[in-house]
Amino acid sequence: MNSKASHQTGNRVVIVGAGFGGLNAAEALAGAPAEITVIDRKNHHTFQPLLYQVATAGLSPGEIAAPIRSILTRHRNVEVLMAEVTGFDLDRRAVQTAEHEVPYDYLIVAAGARHAYFGHEEWEPFAPGLKTIEDALEIRRRVLLAFELAERRAAAGEGDDPLNFVVVGGGPTGVELAGTLAEICRHALAGDFRSIDPRRARIHLIEGGPHVLPAYPEDLSRSALEQLRRLGVEVSTSAMVTKIEPGVIYMGDTPMNAAVILWAAGVAASPLGKKLGGPTDRAGRVLVEPDLSIPAHPEVFVIGDLAALKDASGNLLPGVAPVAIQEGRFVGKLIMRELEKRPPSFSRSLREGGDFDFHYHDKGSLATIGRSAAIAQFGKIHISGFAAWLAWLFVHILFLIGFRNRVLVFIQWAWSYFTYERGARLITGGTNLPGWSDTHLGDHRPKPGAEEISATVDK
Amino acid sequence: MNSKASHQTGNRVVIVGAGFGGLNAAEALAGAPAEITVIDRKNHHTFQPLLYQVATAGLSPGEIAAPIRSILTRHRNVEVLMAEVTGFDLDRRAVQTAEHEVPYDYLIVAAGARHAYFGHEEWEPFAPGLKTIEDALEIRRRVLLAFELAERRAAAGEGDDPLNFVVVGGGPTGVELAGTLAEICRHALAGDFRSIDPRRARIHLIEGGPHVLPAYPEDLSRSALEQLRRLGVEVSTSAMVTKIEPGVIYMGDTPMNAAVILWAAGVAASPLGKKLGGPTDRAGRVLVEPDLSIPAHPEVFVIGDLAALKDASGNLLPGVAPVAIQEGRFVGKLIMRELEKRPPSFSRSLREGGDFDFHYHDKGSLATIGRSAAIAQFGKIHISGFAAWLAWLFVHILFLIGFRNRVLVFIQWAWSYFTYERGARLITGGTNLPGWSDTHLGDHRPKPGAEEISATVDK
Repeated sequence: MNSKASHQTGNRVVIVGAGFGGLNAAEALAGAPAEITVIDRKNHHTFQPLLYQVATAGLSPGEIAAPIRSILTRHRNVEVLMAEVTGFDLDRRAVQTAEHEVPYDYLIVAAGARHAYFGHEEWEPFAPGLKTIEDALEIRRRVLLAFELAERRAAAGEGDDPLNFVVVGGGPTGVELAGTLAEICRHALAGDFRSIDPRRARIHLIEGGPHVLPAYPEDLSRSALEQLRRLGVEVSTSAMVTKIEPGVIYMGDTPMNAAVILWAAGVAASPLGKKLGGPTDRAGRVLVEPDLSIPAHPEVFVIGDLAALKDASGNLLPGVAPVAIQEGRFVGKLIMRELEKRPPSFSRSLREGGDFDFHYHDKGSLATIGRSAAIAQFGKIHISGFAAWLAWLFVHILFLIGFRNRVLVFIQWAWSYFTYERGARLITGGTNLPGWSDTHLGDHRPKPGAEEISATVDK
Repeated sequence: MNSKASHQTGNRVVIVGAGFGGLNAAEALAGAPAEITVIDRKNHHTFQPLLYQVATAGLSPGEIAAPIRSILTRHRNVEVLMAEVTGFDLDRRAVQTAEHEVPYDYLIVAAGARHAYFGHEEWEPFAPGLKTIEDALEIRRRVLLAFELAERRAAAGEGDDPLNFVVVGGGPTGVELAGTLAEICRHALAGDFRSIDPRRARIHLIEGGPHVLPAYPEDLSRSALEQLRRLGVEVSTSAMVTKIEPGVIYMGDTPMNAAVILWAAGVAASPLGKKLGGPTDRAGRVLVEPDLSIPAHPEVFVIGDLAALKDASGNLLPGVAPVAIQEGRFVGKLIMRELEKRPPSFSRSLREGGDFDFHYHDKGSLATIGRSAAIAQFGKIHISGFAAWLAWLFVHILFLIGFRNRVLVFIQWAWSYFTYERGARLITGGTNLPGWSDTHLGDHRPKPGAEEISATVDK
C-alpha cells in the first residue's frame, strides 16, 4: 500500500497505536496531502476511562470500544492495519511488524502503557491489571465467579466466610474499581444469593503512599478517602505489598486471604519506547523534545502515555486522555503544516521560536469513586461528591467515541442508576480461580516468614 | 442447602439446565411448597435465537444473555447453583456435580443439546459451531479477523483474492449465519477497508439435503432459497462435506479454500441424557413417557432439546424454544399439583387418563434469513419476506428475557437497520486463524484424493 501511496504523494505518515493520541493525530491529518497508515495490534479503540465499568459488569465491551477502521472510515487518505509492531528502522524509515515492513516519511509512536508489577511479573496471574478489554473481561469473570463459588460452597454447608476483594493501588483505576465493587456487593448482587450475603463482602484498597489519588490536591484526596469509606471500602495507606500468592496477599509479614486480587499499582510504558533507541525514564517513557519529536529524528514523534514531557513548572505531564488528545492534535497539525511545504522539511531549526513547542492546556481533572461519588478540580475550583460525579458522567459520555455508544451507555447508566442493576454480569471463559482449586479458601492459611519484597507504587 | 430445605418442606425439586425449558419450569414452581434448585454450568441464560447476532457483531453478549440468578431472584424458594452436573444416582435420588451431591425429590433434566460433528470431532477446531456465547464470540473473532488479515496482506501487495466464507448446514442457524454474513460484507464492512473490497467476499451455504430449512413446507423453503440468493449467498443443496482441513473444505473430492468455515449441520443431545440410564434415540435424546417423565421414574422428567417425544401425528417435536417453554411449564404445573397433596405421590397411575399427558400447541414457526428477509408459518398461513421478518423481529424482541435488554436490543436494531452499522465489531482473544498461519491462503492448495467420508445433516 505504501508503495501505491508514495506514488501519489511521496508523503507517508505512519501512526503506531490507536488510543486517544493516535486517533487524534489521524483525525488532524485527515485530508492532508499524504497517505496515513494507523497500525494497532487490536481492531478496536478502547475508551479506557470506562474500562472499569466493563470489569464491574456495568457495560458491555461493545459499548466502550469501537472498530478503529469504522471510526476513521470517512477519511479516505487514512488506512488501518491490524498488526503487531515489533520494532523500527529509523535510518531506513520503516516500521517493522511481525509479517511486513511499513515505510514512512513521518512516524508517530503512540503505543501507550501497560500495567506493571515492578519486577514481580510472577504476581500477574494472581492479581490481574486493567488496561485492555481482555483484562476487563478477566476481572469481571473473577469477581462474579468468586460469588458463584462461595454460594456453591455455602449451599453445600462448607461455611460462608465473607469474601475479601483486594485492590492494590490507590490511583484513579484502583479507586474506581474499589468503589464500584463495594457498590455492586451492596446493591446489584445483594438479593440474588440464598446461602451467602454479598453485602458482607469486604473491599480492601491498598495504597503504598500516604494518600489515595495522590495526583490531586490534599483536600480532594481526603474527600476521596471519606467517600470511599462511606461506600464501605476499607482503605490502607502507606501499606506495602510484599508478596502475592494464589488467594493470599501479604502486607509486610501480614497475610490476608483474598477471593480476588486486582492490580492497579502502576504502569510502565510500552516496550516500543526503548526500541526507538533514545533516552527513556525509569518507567520506560521516551524523553521527547519540546515539539514531541525525538532527539536527532525530527520526523519521529512520541505522544501520549509513552512520552515523557515536563510542563512549564517542571512537572511531568500526567498519563491521561486530555494530554494524549492534545499531543495527537498538535503533532498532526505540525506535520500537516510541513507537508504543505514542497519539499517537506524535517529540520527542527524551522520549528524554533517556541510556537512549535507543545503546551498542555489543563482544563481540569476528574476522578470517579462510585455511585454519586467523585472529585473534580478545575483550576482553583475543587468539587466533590454528587456534583463532581455528574460532571464526570457528563464529560465521559460526551467524549465517548461514536454517537451510538453514547446513547446506549447513557441509557444503561440511567437504567442502572435507578435500578442498581448491572447489565453485563456474564461469566465467560474458564470456571476456576487461583487459590480456589484447593478445598475451602478459608483453610488456605499462608506459611509465616514472607521474605521482604517491596512493591512501591509508581506515580 | 437441601438439608436445610428438607427441614422446611421435605420437597426438593432440582432443575438441571437454565435454558428455556428449565427457566419456565422454575417459574411455574415459584411459590410452590418446595425448595427449587436450578443448576447450570453457566451463570447466564442465553437467548439462543439471537446468538447468531452476537456471532455476526450485531449485538453484544450482554444484550442476549442475563444472569440466571437475577432472572429468578424474586422467587425466594428458588436457588441457583453454578456447577457442572456429572451424573445422577436415581436410586438415592441425588444429582452429582464435580464437587457435591444435590439430593432431590423431583428432578427435571433440561440440559439441551450441543452441535455435533457425527464422528468428525476433529473438524471442530476448523469449523466451530454456534450454541454458546463463547461459540458466538469465537465465530465473530474469526469472521472479523479474516477481513483484517486479508487487508494486511493486500496492503503488503500479497494479492487480494476474495474471501470465501462457508457455512455448513441449511437449517435455521446456517441460514441466519449465511444471510447475515452476506449482509455485513455488502454493507457494514463495505467502506471500511482500503486494499480489499469486502463486497467481493463470497458466502457459501452447504446443505446435505435437497432443501434449505427442510422443516418448513416446500413453498417456504423455496422462498427462503430465493431470499438467500437475493442477499448474495451461494447455496449448494444435496452437497456432502467429506473433509475439513485448516482453510479448506471438501465436497466429494472437490476442495474449496475457505477463510472461515462455520458448522451448523446438526446437533446431538447433552451426554447427560444417556446418564439417566434409560433408552435414547440416535441423537442421544431421551425417550420419555407422555407426561415427560422417564420409564420407571415418575419423579424424573426430561424436557426441551434433550427429550424425544412424538406428537399425535407421530412426528418428533422439534428442538425449538416454544416446545421447551411449554414442556417446562407443563412439568412445573404437574409437580406443583402433586406437591399440594400430602404426601406427594409419584405413582404414574395417578397421572393416567390423558389429562396429565403433554400436548404441544404449535403457534407457528419463524425463521429469519437476513435484513428484511424471513419466512413464517402460522398453520395454513405462509408468509415470507419483509412481513415475515417484522413478525420475527416482534416475536423475538418480545420474548427476549429482561425488559432492559428488550429496550437496548430494539434500539440497536433500529439503529443498525437504518445505518447498516454493526455495534459489536470487536476482535478479542487470539489473532490467528486456522489455515492462515502458512503464507498466503491462496497458495494453500489441497492435495488430491480426499477419502470419502460422508457427514450427512441430522434434522
